[in-house]
Amino acid sequence: MRAAILSIGDELISGQTLDGNARWLAGQLAERAVTTVEFRIVADDRAAIGTAIGELARRADVLLVTGGIGPTADDLTRQALGDVLTPGRELVTDPVGVEHLKRRFRPHHRRMPPSNRVQAQRPPDTRLLANPRGTALGIAGEHEGCRIYVMPGPPVEMRTMYRHQVMPELDLPPEAVRVTGQVHALGLGESAADERLGPITDRRRRPKVGITHSGSIVTARIIAEGPPPDPAATLAETRAAIVRAWTPYAYGVDDETIGSAVVALLRQRSRRLVTAESCTGGGLAKLVVDVAGASDVYVGGWVTYSDDLKRRCLDVPADLLHRHGAVSAPVAGAMAVGALAAGGADEALAVTGIAGPSGGSPDKEVGSVFIAHARRDAAVSVRRFRFPGDRETVRDRSAKWALQMLRWALLEVGRDVELLWEVPVDVASASCETSDIT
Amino acid sequence: MRAAILSIGDELISGQTLDGNARWLAGQLAERAVTTVEFRIVADDRAAIGTAIGELARRADVLLVTGGIGPTADDLTRQALGDVLTPGRELVTDPVGVEHLKRRFRPHHRRMPPSNRVQAQRPPDTRLLANPRGTALGIAGEHEGCRIYVMPGPPVEMRTMYRHQVMPELDLPPEAVRVTGQVHALGLGESAADERLGPITDRRRRPKVGITHSGSIVTARIIAEGPPPDPAATLAETRAAIVRAWTPYAYGVDDETIGSAVVALLRQRSRRLVTAESCTGGGLAKLVVDVAGASDVYVGGWVTYSDDLKRRCLDVPADLLHRHGAVSAPVAGAMAVGALAAGGADEALAVTGIAGPSGGSPDKEVGSVFIAHARRDAAVSVRRFRFPGDRETVRDRSAKWALQMLRWALLEVGRDVELLWEVPVDVASASCETSDIT
Repeated sequence: MRAAILSIGDELISGQTLDGNARWLAGQLAERAVTTVEFRIVADDRAAIGTAIGELARRADVLLVTGGIGPTADDLTRQALGDVLTPGRELVTDPVGVEHLKRRFRPHHRRMPPSNRVQAQRPPDTRLLANPRGTALGIAGEHEGCRIYVMPGPPVEMRTMYRHQVMPELDLPPEAVRVTGQVHALGLGESAADERLGPITDRRRRPKVGITHSGSIVTARIIAEGPPPDPAATLAETRAAIVRAWTPYAYGVDDETIGSAVVALLRQRSRRLVTAESCTGGGLAKLVVDVAGASDVYVGGWVTYSDDLKRRCLDVPADLLHRHGAVSAPVAGAMAVGALAAGGADEALAVTGIAGPSGGSPDKEVGSVFIAHARRDAAVSVRRFRFPGDRETVRDRSAKWALQMLRWALLEVGRDVELLWEVPVDVASASCETSDIT
Repeated sequence: MRAAILSIGDELISGQTLDGNARWLAGQLAERAVTTVEFRIVADDRAAIGTAIGELARRADVLLVTGGIGPTADDLTRQALGDVLTPGRELVTDPVGVEHLKRRFRPHHRRMPPSNRVQAQRPPDTRLLANPRGTALGIAGEHEGCRIYVMPGPPVEMRTMYRHQVMPELDLPPEAVRVTGQVHALGLGESAADERLGPITDRRRRPKVGITHSGSIVTARIIAEGPPPDPAATLAETRAAIVRAWTPYAYGVDDETIGSAVVALLRQRSRRLVTAESCTGGGLAKLVVDVAGASDVYVGGWVTYSDDLKRRCLDVPADLLHRHGAVSAPVAGAMAVGALAAGGADEALAVTGIAGPSGGSPDKEVGSVFIAHARRDAAVSVRRFRFPGDRETVRDRSAKWALQMLRWALLEVGRDVELLWEVPVDVASASCETSDIT
């Protein structure tokens, strides 16, 4: 089966927003061995949408269209679909659609704006597709032997409609014949990651493995093809080999995040975590709380953005702040120790640094970050980093690196393993730190 | 001038990652009146890349290629470019490129892995483009009258190279002849937002205005075309009209976020903010600290994920937690009042709710969130919401809605204006709350 994907929206063609829908649909189709033969983006233009639907319908067996079926004046897909499927005929108002719209507005005690009524319209000889997540109904039709499915642009609505209304009609293989897997690592450079894999990334090897990096994370993407159960088995084998090669940097596979990896480890070991953040400003806590069920292992945290709050909440001695500055190994250590005590937890992470764009000095440039890990009845450890990148990047890396430090501590590995962008903590400052905070 | 954009990567064609580069480049070109005639994505396949380069070079005056020039075995763009430009000839190693690579590794005290050396190679009769942000050098060449620029896939590196090496060579108009602007609103439904705009969204009107919604934010996107200074003036006029129509929901224009809008207002009024979060888990603090310079107005905050921490850090009475539960109007109010006192600030926001997927009850379903705002020497106000969506969506909405509540309070508007998904706070609970927390 050959598929084509058409995305509609001025904001897509002019580069104002990303087209994540096409990407997601291509992935769904690829899993079931459906080849996407063309990928097209057009503007909110009735003629252009019509032309694209006509051309793509002739080239593919199934055409998936997203966008342009909202209630606003620039939503023109249903008219354009009518121009192609039933030229010269008016759209019809589907009573089932009207009922759906009324139901959507009722529980929120909201009056239905009249413009929404257009969403119950469809070309004759087509049918509406239910949308349990929003007001925009989908439309299914056929043209020159190609099945056409029009779905809403908002990703949540589109995905639900694809899974429940469209996919079941496509007669796809019951099991995936092309499976993909991923291994994620943190704190390892891209070329070092590649070297560790050796022949695994050879282009002729099957399953195929490629490396990408994004948001500081190096990911190996594995694609295994063939009839089940083989692809799943070869995938699992290669995935395990990559995890071994990337130990201790590899923290998870597939959908796992550094946050979910740490939450799972904390749960396994019955340890409870607190966080104390300065430059990351809640970003570290957020990575943990992003994981459903984090409340079992996460007590909470402080965003001690001001020095005053560092003293008040975490008992960081004023003298320490004065002598070393808020961005220093001793203060990072004291924040972790203070958080551990104040939160009544087993593990504490603290981050203090200069995210920029201003605030740097010759001694501590923008990107300088200290991360401390404290554990009940154990010494506190502080590592220093010099992260490249802008404010957002430095903060993102700081939060993720902190979780990798905790992960290694929980696994009791990595104490002498270097993390990318680590710089040595000054010995004088490190030793004074130990005496200061204990 | 006609442009084509080619993105390379298995992960793009198989739907594993988004192609943000093509989007960004299309936006850059559109601003300078360059039409993008084709948008293509191909896999990491030497023959497919070569074919695409050849075909697109015949159709366009400039071809922008991204991806496939890293150091790993699946980076094949430089070979494919050689196949098209100088078939039958070997790639050459550029000494300038070797020097660049050595310089990149030196300051980090890292050994250059031998595989990186391939990044100094290029086809004969081409030249390398400097990359101040990474190891992958770009390549510039020409084929059948089309200028070809190959840039790295990581967005930061690509953008820097485009701005500093590629754009200056394209002889583009000195000023933008097509300007785009945006107005963002929060707490207003998409069709209500459309109705408020009336004829502004008419398809025949210029500048063109379209509405999209993403991450709870409704955005009007304005596109104005023509020779300067006209497009800028008509853009500004339309933008102001939309802001008026969307008052008090509109919080910002163009690159402004709800976080930056609130930080600017706090600075204007010399007010300092603290935050106390439960279900948002640092997400609210992060939205504020995302803004550079937030430290002037943001004292810090608490992530009181456990009840214990709510008592310890924010003095929330145990009795209140017991009687009303942690997710209740009285507890939200007490958290805000406690944070205000503990942080020594002027304004406090507190959020407590059930983000899901579990934890809901018939009385308080998943998505139930209480947001409180407390102000020094003023009554605390609590609003209740029932947000639709998954865990991530509920938390994101909670954090953004909290900032909109604060924004309205700072502007002294919106006290009787409803926010989308607001549900009335039970009168009995609201009144008991006032007596409990004051």
